[in-house]
Amino acid sequence: MSRRYDSRTTIFSPEGRLYQVEYAMEAIGNAGSAIGILAKDGVVLVGEKKVISKLLETSTSVEKMYKIDDHVACAVAGIMSDANILINTARLQAQRYTFAYQEPMPLEQLVQSLCDTKQGYTQYGGLRPFGVSFLFAGWDKNYGFQLYMSDPSGNFSGWKAAAIGANNQAAQSILKQDYKDDITREEAAQLAIKVLSKTMDSTSLNSEKLELAEIFLADGTVRFQMCPSDKLNKMLVKSGLTQPSADAQ
Amino acid sequence: MSRRYDSRTTIFSPEGRLYQVEYAMEAIGNAGSAIGILAKDGVVLVGEKKVISKLLETSTSVEKMYKIDDHVACAVAGIMSDANILINTARLQAQRYTFAYQEPMPLEQLVQSLCDTKQGYTQYGGLRPFGVSFLFAGWDKNYGFQLYMSDPSGNFSGWKAAAIGANNQAAQSILKQDYKDDITREEAAQLAIKVLSKTMDSTSLNSEKLELAEIFLADGTVRFQMCPSDKLNKMLVKSGLTQPSADAQ
Amino acid sequence: MSRRYDSRTTIFSPEGRLYQVEYAMEAIGNAGSAIGILAKDGVVLVGEKKVISKLLETSTSVEKMYKIDDHVACAVAGIMSDANILINTARLQAQRYTFAYQEPMPLEQLVQSLCDTKQGYTQYGGLRPFGVSFLFAGWDKNYGFQLYMSDPSGNFSGWKAAAIGANNQAAQSILKQDYKDDITREEAAQLAIKVLSKTMDSTSLNSEKLELAEIFLADGTVRFQMCPSDKLNKMLVKSGLTQPSADAQ
Amino acid sequence: MSRRYDSRTTIFSPEGRLYQVEYAMEAIGNAGSAIGILAKDGVVLVGEKKVISKLLETSTSVEKMYKIDDHVACAVAGIMSDANILINTARLQAQRYTFAYQEPMPLEQLVQSLCDTKQGYTQYGGLRPFGVSFLFAGWDKNYGFQLYMSDPSGNFSGWKAAAIGANNQAAQSILKQDYKDDITREEAAQLAIKVLSKTMDSTSLNSEKLELAEIFLADGTVRFQMCPSDKLNKMLVKSGLTQPSADAQ
Amino acid sequence: MSRRYDSRTTIFSPEGRLYQVEYAMEAIGNAGSAIGILAKDGVVLVGEKKVISKLLETSTSVEKMYKIDDHVACAVAGIMSDANILINTARLQAQRYTFAYQEPMPLEQLVQSLCDTKQGYTQYGGLRPFGVSFLFAGWDKNYGFQLYMSDPSGNFSGWKAAAIGANNQAAQSILKQDYKDDITREEAAQLAIKVLSKTMDSTSLNSEKLELAEIFLADGTVRFQMCPSDKLNKMLVKSGLTQPSADAQ
Amino acid sequence: MSRRYDSRTTIFSPEGRLYQVEYAMEAIGNAGSAIGILAKDGVVLVGEKKVISKLLETSTSVEKMYKIDDHVACAVAGIMSDANILINTARLQAQRYTFAYQEPMPLEQLVQSLCDTKQGYTQYGGLRPFGVSFLFAGWDKNYGFQLYMSDPSGNFSGWKAAAIGANNQAAQSILKQDYKDDITREEAAQLAIKVLSKTMDSTSLNSEKLELAEIFLADGTVRFQMCPSDKLNKMLVKSGLTQPSADAQ
Amino acid sequence: MSRRYDSRTTIFSPEGRLYQVEYAMEAIGNAGSAIGILAKDGVVLVGEKKVISKLLETSTSVEKMYKIDDHVACAVAGIMSDANILINTARLQAQRYTFAYQEPMPLEQLVQSLCDTKQGYTQYGGLRPFGVSFLFAGWDKNYGFQLYMSDPSGNFSGWKAAAIGANNQAAQSILKQDYKDDITREEAAQLAIKVLSKTMDSTSLNSEKLELAEIFLADGTVRFQMCPSDKLNKMLVKSGLTQPSADAQ
Repeated sequence: MSRRYDSRTTIFSPEGRLYQVEYAMEAIGNAGSAIGILAKDGVVLVGEKKVISKLLETSTSVEKMYKIDDHVACAVAGIMSDANILINTARLQAQRYTFAYQEPMPLEQLVQSLCDTKQGYTQYGGLRPFGVSFLFAGWDKNYGFQLYMSDPSGNFSGWKAAAIGANNQAAQSILKQDYKDDITREEAAQLAIKVLSKTMDSTSLNSEKLELAEIFLADGTVRFQMCPSDKLNKMLVKSGLTQPSADAQ
Repeated sequence: MSRRYDSRTTIFSPEGRLYQVEYAMEAIGNAGSAIGILAKDGVVLVGEKKVISKLLETSTSVEKMYKIDDHVACAVAGIMSDANILINTARLQAQRYTFAYQEPMPLEQLVQSLCDTKQGYTQYGGLRPFGVSFLFAGWDKNYGFQLYMSDPSGNFSGWKAAAIGANNQAAQSILKQDYKDDITREEAAQLAIKVLSKTMDSTSLNSEKLELAEIFLADGTVRFQMCPSDKLNKMLVKSGLTQPSADAQ
Repeated sequence: MSRRYDSRTTIFSPEGRLYQVEYAMEAIGNAGSAIGILAKDGVVLVGEKKVISKLLETSTSVEKMYKIDDHVACAVAGIMSDANILINTARLQAQRYTFAYQEPMPLEQLVQSLCDTKQGYTQYGGLRPFGVSFLFAGWDKNYGFQLYMSDPSGNFSGWKAAAIGANNQAAQSILKQDYKDDITREEAAQLAIKVLSKTMDSTSLNSEKLELAEIFLADGTVRFQMCPSDKLNKMLVKSGLTQPSADAQ
Repeated sequence: MSRRYDSRTTIFSPEGRLYQVEYAMEAIGNAGSAIGILAKDGVVLVGEKKVISKLLETSTSVEKMYKIDDHVACAVAGIMSDANILINTARLQAQRYTFAYQEPMPLEQLVQSLCDTKQGYTQYGGLRPFGVSFLFAGWDKNYGFQLYMSDPSGNFSGWKAAAIGANNQAAQSILKQDYKDDITREEAAQLAIKVLSKTMDSTSLNSEKLELAEIFLADGTVRFQMCPSDKLNKMLVKSGLTQPSADAQ
Repeated sequence: MSRRYDSRTTIFSPEGRLYQVEYAMEAIGNAGSAIGILAKDGVVLVGEKKVISKLLETSTSVEKMYKIDDHVACAVAGIMSDANILINTARLQAQRYTFAYQEPMPLEQLVQSLCDTKQGYTQYGGLRPFGVSFLFAGWDKNYGFQLYMSDPSGNFSGWKAAAIGANNQAAQSILKQDYKDDITREEAAQLAIKVLSKTMDSTSLNSEKLELAEIFLADGTVRFQMCPSDKLNKMLVKSGLTQPSADAQ
Repeated sequence: MSRRYDSRTTIFSPEGRLYQVEYAMEAIGNAGSAIGILAKDGVVLVGEKKVISKLLETSTSVEKMYKIDDHVACAVAGIMSDANILINTARLQAQRYTFAYQEPMPLEQLVQSLCDTKQGYTQYGGLRPFGVSFLFAGWDKNYGFQLYMSDPSGNFSGWKAAAIGANNQAAQSILKQDYKDDITREEAAQLAIKVLSKTMDSTSLNSEKLELAEIFLADGTVRFQMCPSDKLNKMLVKSGLTQPSADAQ
Repeated sequence: MSRRYDSRTTIFSPEGRLYQVEYAMEAIGNAGSAIGILAKDGVVLVGEKKVISKLLETSTSVEKMYKIDDHVACAVAGIMSDANILINTARLQAQRYTFAYQEPMPLEQLVQSLCDTKQGYTQYGGLRPFGVSFLFAGWDKNYGFQLYMSDPSGNFSGWKAAAIGANNQAAQSILKQDYKDDITREEAAQLAIKVLSKTMDSTSLNSEKLELAEIFLADGTVRFQMCPSDKLNKMLVKSGLTQPSADAQ
């Protein structure tokens, strides 16, 4: 019955639903998941890499994490080519703001501007929604460290800990249980890895299947840092999730 | 039979109905409700928060209330990303008016301008209506305190007390019974909370499920003020709707 | 059989009908009716208010009557948000004419310009007709007092007495019987109220369900005046349509 | 079978027909008819008024006849709001020509320019044809008095006598029988009235159901003149079509 | 089966056909035919008039022949209002060429430019092909007298003798039999009339059903000349196709 | 099953096919064929004329061969009006290049630019592909004599010998057998005629059914030359494909 | 069931899939495959030629390899005319970058910019995706030698060894087995040829069915070099894939 309302972006179904937006979320539900946790001294983003091949060039192929400006980064779940378009837009807007006002763009303003773009693709004819969810992590002088989640509808909100992509419901409920308000950045990273290991489809977790990024303050400036492979391995060993590899020995 | 006329925005059904507009209202009927009451010394807006999670960052995530200009605020029910677009538009128009005429934009003019935008999305092809209803509360020098309600069709009117979102019919009829013309701001807040508690789907009400905002005059200037969590708790206790929490004790 | 031709604005049915225009008229047939009567010393417009609630703010919510320029006003039946768009257009055109030619815009020219806009929405693709009928009442130096009626097709004509909205057929036939050419403004108001009382769906008429406006000359200038509630009550009492209320006693 | 080709303006049916144009003509077939006759000393246009009500304001509501320029007028059958758009266009073009070349626009050029506009609405997508036929009557220095007929397809041709609207086939065949080449303007008016009386749906004809206009030369300039009601009555009496009214006696 | 491909201009059927173009040719197959013959001293165009009525104004209503420039004329079969648009375009292009290069536009260039316009209406969406075929007759200094035929697809080619409109196949085959290379203009006219008389639907031919135009050189300049009615009658009598009329005697 | 994907240009079928492009090729498969052969001292193009009538004006109607610039010509198979548009474009581009760089446009660049235009008509909505294939023959200073073939998809490649239009498969396989790398222009012409005679639908070949063009160098400049009728006859006689005609004796 | 969502580019299916993009990949699956291998001293691209005919002009018809800038080349699988458009775009962007910044465009930036273009064709109405996959090989000063693969969705990533086109899955798994990190350019070429020979549909491989290109550094500048036919033969002989040909002996 509901079939009649799901083939065009710009119409409501009789129950007031926008099916194309829901289908776009379905596309994200199959993508590698990502988890963000707000700590008292920074923000941690962890992402699961779905395409794993020893032929993949890791130095140039970052799958899940993107730096948007010096003070903002994001983790992505969904269609990568859709994400690229939006990330470019975000980078441009952040630069324009800095150029115009000579200070970093406030985080929420950046997120909302991107979400307004997303919303347009759910309301105008001849377009499909962007099939991508984001976790935005950053710091600004008004609200300090922040973590935002946005979905294909253009909705967004601020979170202390959030998960997107495959099994995000399960991840979210583990987070709800284990998250503490005064968590440190290191604890947050351990927690994120633990949640990911419990919700991933594959059984064993290793540093090749993971990307971990941290936003923190160092010498008064914001830093975005991808966690290197060996440090990641140590964390996995420490978590008891993986055996120390031969290389690391 | 009527099915043939509900999949395109811009057509009338044989009975003269615009189904897409009605479906958009359906979308709002599932959203958290909001109640506005016009008191003799101000306007009170109360909103029910639907997404409640201890992981949600409350400081940056205001769900239901938006300040549009120094003298106008609104409560929202429906699709948040649609609301964001319209609120941005409203803020811009208010600023432009102030810039051009060096005085705050009259409230009704602001509301109508926004509703004209909404109407366009019900008449032109390739668009869907905005799935959002508003309660606008504000003060201007011509008509003093005012409360307006607008729906997805672009209709609007001035009210003494009004409700949007889930169970708005029930809320409206309680308001009709209990509203008095010379109500004070404090009584209005108590009444709004009472109405919300009676019409909400969940049984118990606490300050985390509520947002309360007030528009009033202080020292001759208009003030928009979100009610802080502890004051909200006191009001709930006073209303007998909740037990004094351990924190408050 | 005719179903195939009613889902798109811009096509004729085999019998040469434009179904979308007819459906738009259907939308108006459910709206509160309005009656206009041309008297020898003015024009009277009476409208039935459909949404009646003691919570409605009457001071800012005029439902049926709109002043377009100093010398023109209109009564409306149909979709209010559609009407707002057209009334704004009309006001702008009247102001532009005055600015360009330094005299009030002739009434028929104003009406036709608005109707041309309406016509376009019945001929171009991707649009629906405006779901609103108007009674325009005004005075200009060429033709004195005038009354025009327009419908969603963009047709219009001058009338001595006319009715739009719910039960307009019945109202029109009573008007045909009772209208006299040398009717005074006061008699016209009484006649309009009488017609409304006989054609309204509800049984009892009171001043809250009515709006009455008059266009007349005073001191050589045109005046548009909404009839205040108490005067309206007296007229209803005088007509024997309502009992003198306790307030009035 | 032919149904598949009648719901879009811009396509041919397998037999090479444009159904939407034919349906538009159908719309005209239901409209009040008009008759034009070219006499040796002028042109006569007669139109049947369909909407007759004593409440109709006759001074401002001319239903069938429109003056386009000093030397051209037209009679209309079909959708009035469509006609208004085209008549405005024609007036503007005539004025522009006069402004550019300092002489009246040649009649055929004016008619063709209007018909080219009509043609476009039968060839481009997202439009419907104009549902209106015209009889253009006028005089220019090249061809003297002329009478043109145009239909929704944009076709036009010059005629000595022509009929549009309801029962135009019957009217045309009476005209063919009774028209003489050296007819005078007065005889033409009598003939036109006679044809109308024989083809009208109602049985009795009176001056309220008729509009008669004449184009003729007076003192070397072209005149367009609507026949006043009393003169019309005399003509009807003279034709034996109506009894002398009490007023006229 | 082929039905699926015939309702939109811009698609090929599986056999590589453009149905809308073929349907447009169907529209022309019902129109009055026209015949063109290239003689050694000129070109002759003959057209059959379909609408014959003594009420038709012959002086201003040329049905089949149009002069495009001093050196080019055309005969038309199909939808007249479509033809008008193209003829206007052709006239404008010829004038622009003359203005730019100070010499008459070469005939083939003029024809091709018009056919390119026609082609566009068979390739772009939301348009229908022009339902009209042309015979272009003219003279230029490069190729002398020329005769071109074009159809709704935008195809064209040069011919010695050609027929368009109703029964053009039959006409073409008679022409093939009787055409001689060194035909004179007078013989060509006789031949064209003979062909027309044999292929027309009506049995008897007279000068009212015919239009005959000639392009020839006189005093070194190209002349386009419509054959007057009496000369036409003489030719018909001479051809034995009609009895000498009483007038001519 | 595949039917669902063949009515719109811009979609892929589940097997990754573009049906409209394939249907356009079907249209070409019915058109008169053309053959091109690259010889060591030039390029030969031969085309079969489909429309043969003694009434056709041969001097102005070249059916298959078009000169694009001094150094490029093409043979065409498919819809002539589509070809005209593309040939005009090609001529214009060649002229623009010469104007800008003061040297002839390189052949491959010219061909690719045209094919890019063709490609666009297979990817954008509301358009159909061009129903025409080309053989481009020419010479430039970089690659000497060249022969390119392009089809409706916009694909093109360089060939030593190629065939388009009806029976091009058969023609191509004969060419593959008989082509030698050091073929002379004369041998190439003989070969092309032989191939055409074997693949044509009609049994007997004569000079009226053929067009033959040659591109060669003479005195250091490129020449494009249509083979005159008598020389063509001699070649046919020499090939034993036709009897010496009476004229030639 | 899924059929309803596959005929329009811009919609998601209920499972969140974009069928048109998947169908475009199907189109590529039938095309000649290409393989790219990143060596420590360069990049090797090998492509299988599908259209093999001794009539094909090899000097001007490069089927699989395109040089984009001095430091970038690409191998192509899919619809050639689609590829041409994108390659032109890439060349232009590379030139513009060089002009603006006076240094070669970074490789990843060039690839992403092209992929953003591709993405747009999967999101906007009235378009189909580009039916082409690319292997980009190049060198820049930031990351040295790089190899990227992109598909019709606009996704791309960096690879050490990758395959596109027919049987790319099989090719990819052989590559995974045999690729070593410190492979030399020569070994890479041998490996690529071996993979191709194992995955090609035809049984025997020779130099006519292959194209091999290398990117390497010589004298400090990047070189793009097509492998000549004789060298290719030697490699094939050396690989034992083909017998030494008579020519080579």
